[in-house]
Amino acid sequence: MSSSESFKGWCALGPDAVEGKLVWQDVPAKKFTETDLELDVLACGICASDIHTMRSGWGPTEYPTVVGHEIVGKITKVGSDVKDGYKVGDIVGIGAQCDSCEQCEQCKKESNSYCDGMVGTYSGKFKDGSGRSMGGYASKWRGPATLAIPIPDGLDLSVAAPLLCGGATAYSPLRDYGCGQENGKRVAIVGVGGIGAFGLNWAKALGADEIVAISTTASKKDLAMQLGATDFLAMKDDPEGHKKYRRHFDIILNTAADENMDFDKFVFMLRPRGHLINIAVPEKPCKPVPIGALLFSGANIGGSAIAGRAQLREMLDLAVSAKPNFMIEKRKMSEANEAVKDMVAGKPRFRYTLMAEGQ
Amino acid sequence: MSSSESFKGWCALGPDAVEGKLVWQDVPAKKFTETDLELDVLACGICASDIHTMRSGWGPTEYPTVVGHEIVGKITKVGSDVKDGYKVGDIVGIGAQCDSCEQCEQCKKESNSYCDGMVGTYSGKFKDGSGRSMGGYASKWRGPATLAIPIPDGLDLSVAAPLLCGGATAYSPLRDYGCGQENGKRVAIVGVGGIGAFGLNWAKALGADEIVAISTTASKKDLAMQLGATDFLAMKDDPEGHKKYRRHFDIILNTAADENMDFDKFVFMLRPRGHLINIAVPEKPCKPVPIGALLFSGANIGGSAIAGRAQLREMLDLAVSAKPNFMIEKRKMSEANEAVKDMVAGKPRFRYTLMAEGQ
Repeated sequence: MSSSESFKGWCALGPDAVEGKLVWQDVPAKKFTETDLELDVLACGICASDIHTMRSGWGPTEYPTVVGHEIVGKITKVGSDVKDGYKVGDIVGIGAQCDSCEQCEQCKKESNSYCDGMVGTYSGKFKDGSGRSMGGYASKWRGPATLAIPIPDGLDLSVAAPLLCGGATAYSPLRDYGCGQENGKRVAIVGVGGIGAFGLNWAKALGADEIVAISTTASKKDLAMQLGATDFLAMKDDPEGHKKYRRHFDIILNTAADENMDFDKFVFMLRPRGHLINIAVPEKPCKPVPIGALLFSGANIGGSAIAGRAQLREMLDLAVSAKPNFMIEKRKMSEANEAVKDMVAGKPRFRYTLMAEGQ
Repeated sequence: MSSSESFKGWCALGPDAVEGKLVWQDVPAKKFTETDLELDVLACGICASDIHTMRSGWGPTEYPTVVGHEIVGKITKVGSDVKDGYKVGDIVGIGAQCDSCEQCEQCKKESNSYCDGMVGTYSGKFKDGSGRSMGGYASKWRGPATLAIPIPDGLDLSVAAPLLCGGATAYSPLRDYGCGQENGKRVAIVGVGGIGAFGLNWAKALGADEIVAISTTASKKDLAMQLGATDFLAMKDDPEGHKKYRRHFDIILNTAADENMDFDKFVFMLRPRGHLINIAVPEKPCKPVPIGALLFSGANIGGSAIAGRAQLREMLDLAVSAKPNFMIEKRKMSEANEAVKDMVAGKPRFRYTLMAEGQ
């Protein structure tokens, strides 16, 4: 088998993969098709989705699987039908979505993450029967060129990788709801974790005047201020603290998956027509839709899913020009098991990127 | 007692008022203060809120009360501290809110319906201790000049009245979410009733391209098309019909109070960043916040409460210039009991206005 027909990756063989049981072995890769790219993986971020998937937390996972959907790689092979002018040696990124129909209204706007034909970068099945998608905790990645994004010069690869899913997930709703624009000056970020940190970074880069980090306790206050926050609200330590923000924020980005979230309270922290945007899905049902609170606040509860090609490009350019204070820790790809265990333990401040040897 | 110290109205003495038991008697009116206006009521719309309040459907009502918050009247007395240049003989409207603080951020934007100091036009208590607010099913109305709106020339008073609450409730969210603008061309109105009819009228007047009336059955299809709809979807008669609108609408205005609403279905009828706006509050808890559907649709569930002074003025001007096909039936103030019973029976197509004798 040639190097492009077989490669190695950190295979999850069962839910205990997250307990240090990933195995470096041959990857059951998709068949290479002429619309595909093949990459040497240089860097791959560790995303909370990886953990959920490895331990079958979002329903049964089909094992073996290789996770990782924040991939930066160097192109080693370009299918003959790839139309974007990619060539061997180019550095590109692959986020959480690797294929879309390119025909629907959303794809035509390059808002691909809302395409019904979306294929995930791992745990997906390709519609042409070429196999299952396998992620970037591996030596190589293979899949459609459709949603590959060129990595701009001047962006550290350990930073570029986690931007492709975690960064984009925070960026897209902030951008779409006008963060930094006239009706987007006052922003709150709920949860100072992997995506919350990006939310603080982007809110600052996009020009918000007020950026309030909201957490249960004040333990991450200093870090939040370094990330871009202008103020900090600890909901548990200061249970009345939210009152000064009544009808105040234009956007509240909720990065915490919490089925007990008190939507009434947050809705009334929004100005009329403001948006509480949730980007995490709790495993249990949430509280009822608070119709009365929504009516009297005039506000909204919404959600957001990663970003399409247009915003991925735009976001990477902003990362180069605005130079946010991203807090990313490099880990070695060869030590993925330790990094995953640390991720499960909530240790990253605020994101891990697995770096290939030599990177 | 002079005519300005005492007047008559249709007093609800208990929950059976809606069964034809309103009594025309002296109104326990607020004390006149120098920031007040007093009006001869010329017209007063019948709003669903009136029914809820009379029968204590939204919690216990303090009887006796006079309802009616879609009031058009001729000024008979102007308090010495009224600043807006009103004079005796002017025709003004009073909607569902008659007072606000005029100090908060929302009031400064004339977005008064989100002021925490809002006082309802009936069943409210004035902060200065001058008494309770009493509505417009009466010979006169007395209260603050704060939110009086001049009625423009050329607007039939029977139309002007129900616009002040019902019309405004539909107008404000359509306007704020850009109906007729670039991202507001595709609009759906759920429920073809009192407020749904206004929704169809306004969606057309504001320039939406597609206006889909959504109801359970097709019984109101012809009327909906006359009101401004371009298409009709009967959810019960055609249970698969919603599928052609997947990720389609910019705005869905839900005018039905339905605690069993299938939010998942409606959220996926919205384009990413679209808004499902609810303007009615069911008496029982709704289904859980559909976090997953919100995330994968990228859409929002929101609410809206009447309108502030700026939009009330703007809306009345649009009513004059665009001449929507409003369907309003005139009823006699002297026959309020019959009109209320017909309202409870769901007979209006689509709104009743009680007209004073001679109007």
